[in-house]
Amino acid sequence: MDIKPYKKEFDYSYTLGAFPTFELLHAAPERVMEVYSHSSFTDAKKLESECGKAGVRFTFNDRLVSRLSDKENVFAISVFKKTESVLSETAPHVMLVNPGNMGNLGTIIRTAVGFGIKDIAIISPGADIFNPKTIRASMGSFFRVRFKYFDSFEEYRRIYGAHEVFTFMLNGEKKLTVSDCPKPKLFTLVFGNEASGLPDEYLSYGTSVLIPQTEEVDSLNITIAAGIGMYMFTH
Amino acid sequence: MDIKPYKKEFDYSYTLGAFPTFELLHAAPERVMEVYSHSSFTDAKKLESECGKAGVRFTFNDRLVSRLSDKENVFAISVFKKTESVLSETAPHVMLVNPGNMGNLGTIIRTAVGFGIKDIAIISPGADIFNPKTIRASMGSFFRVRFKYFDSFEEYRRIYGAHEVFTFMLNGEKKLTVSDCPKPKLFTLVFGNEASGLPDEYLSYGTSVLIPQTEEVDSLNITIAAGIGMYMFTH
Repeated sequence: MDIKPYKKEFDYSYTLGAFPTFELLHAAPERVMEVYSHSSFTDAKKLESECGKAGVRFTFNDRLVSRLSDKENVFAISVFKKTESVLSETAPHVMLVNPGNMGNLGTIIRTAVGFGIKDIAIISPGADIFNPKTIRASMGSFFRVRFKYFDSFEEYRRIYGAHEVFTFMLNGEKKLTVSDCPKPKLFTLVFGNEASGLPDEYLSYGTSVLIPQTEEVDSLNITIAAGIGMYMFTH
Repeated sequence: MDIKPYKKEFDYSYTLGAFPTFELLHAAPERVMEVYSHSSFTDAKKLESECGKAGVRFTFNDRLVSRLSDKENVFAISVFKKTESVLSETAPHVMLVNPGNMGNLGTIIRTAVGFGIKDIAIISPGADIFNPKTIRASMGSFFRVRFKYFDSFEEYRRIYGAHEVFTFMLNGEKKLTVSDCPKPKLFTLVFGNEASGLPDEYLSYGTSVLIPQTEEVDSLNITIAAGIGMYMFTH
């Protein structure tokens, strides 16, 4: 197999690092195409053994691992198939509207899985969820979620009409406080782009929610706002 | 003035970017030593005017701005004096034990200011709070907090004995839930290192707190855990 630096149009992607590679082998071994290890990787024996169990080819290739790994310390990588998924109709969703940053996208996926939310809707255009940077930031949680890109909120809504929608906005109408948090059974939590937030039309797509904050900051970081929102709605 | 890439031992540091430079001019104009702008900066007039009001020298210097700004798009920088601060004895604190990552440190400062917490205690060794990367990640909130480095928890505690201490740990005893969050008047929220968390001795330094999460993630990202903790204790 000819391994090149990742591009969005590939029908496969990479886990860069031992942690997401092990996570992938545990969560979805059938998607793994190949695993490569650096000869100095201290856990290579364990990785080779798990590849054996999953029927995945394991190869030492220092040059390849170094070439794919940017500047980070990476000792193991895998090549895996991209697959489409369908969101659950009966589980809560997180929706990200035009997410711009792959690190933030990965962090939000990690937090969602931490709070038991496994369905991620993304309104295009948005950061590439398959990019190795997203997967790395998700700490491998990427392999535990379903996700789907939509062209618009309306397209999403035509398919998933039963979810109660909560849009997180700096001009949101409802203040989210500990003593007064909605407790819906089936919900979609909607978060905007890092720089621009959600467009004003999202005020009318459901209940708009504001996390109270001082005027001394421009806004909370989107990963923090999403973390607080997901925590509040799942506890 | 001879401007070199930032080093920890300097008694000054830099804001890299227009946003933190304006923030600094608003929050602490007396600390600004010089401001430099790129000739292509669209808001240069406004920046020059604010420097004038603050009595700060403003200079166009494309080469200098480009040299200090790494790979990021930076159009304005300032040079400012490092100053020590003393924490408030009557306001809530956030304590970070051995924070390792400057981006995370900056994000936590931004969140703290967003929730009205202005006092940050850091247990050494820890990331350099003055590093331009920290300041950039804080979106300029850095200039709105007091902070102090301590050699140990005990050293901190000898000075600040009245605060009720809450340590956030994966083996914490008290589950933090929406229906059962402590409501202390004066508190210190303690968070550990990104990779290793808090050492076990922190279990006995106060009330140890766990943010309930699924077993499918290793842990929450430290900035998310800190964000949820600060939100819960201030609302």
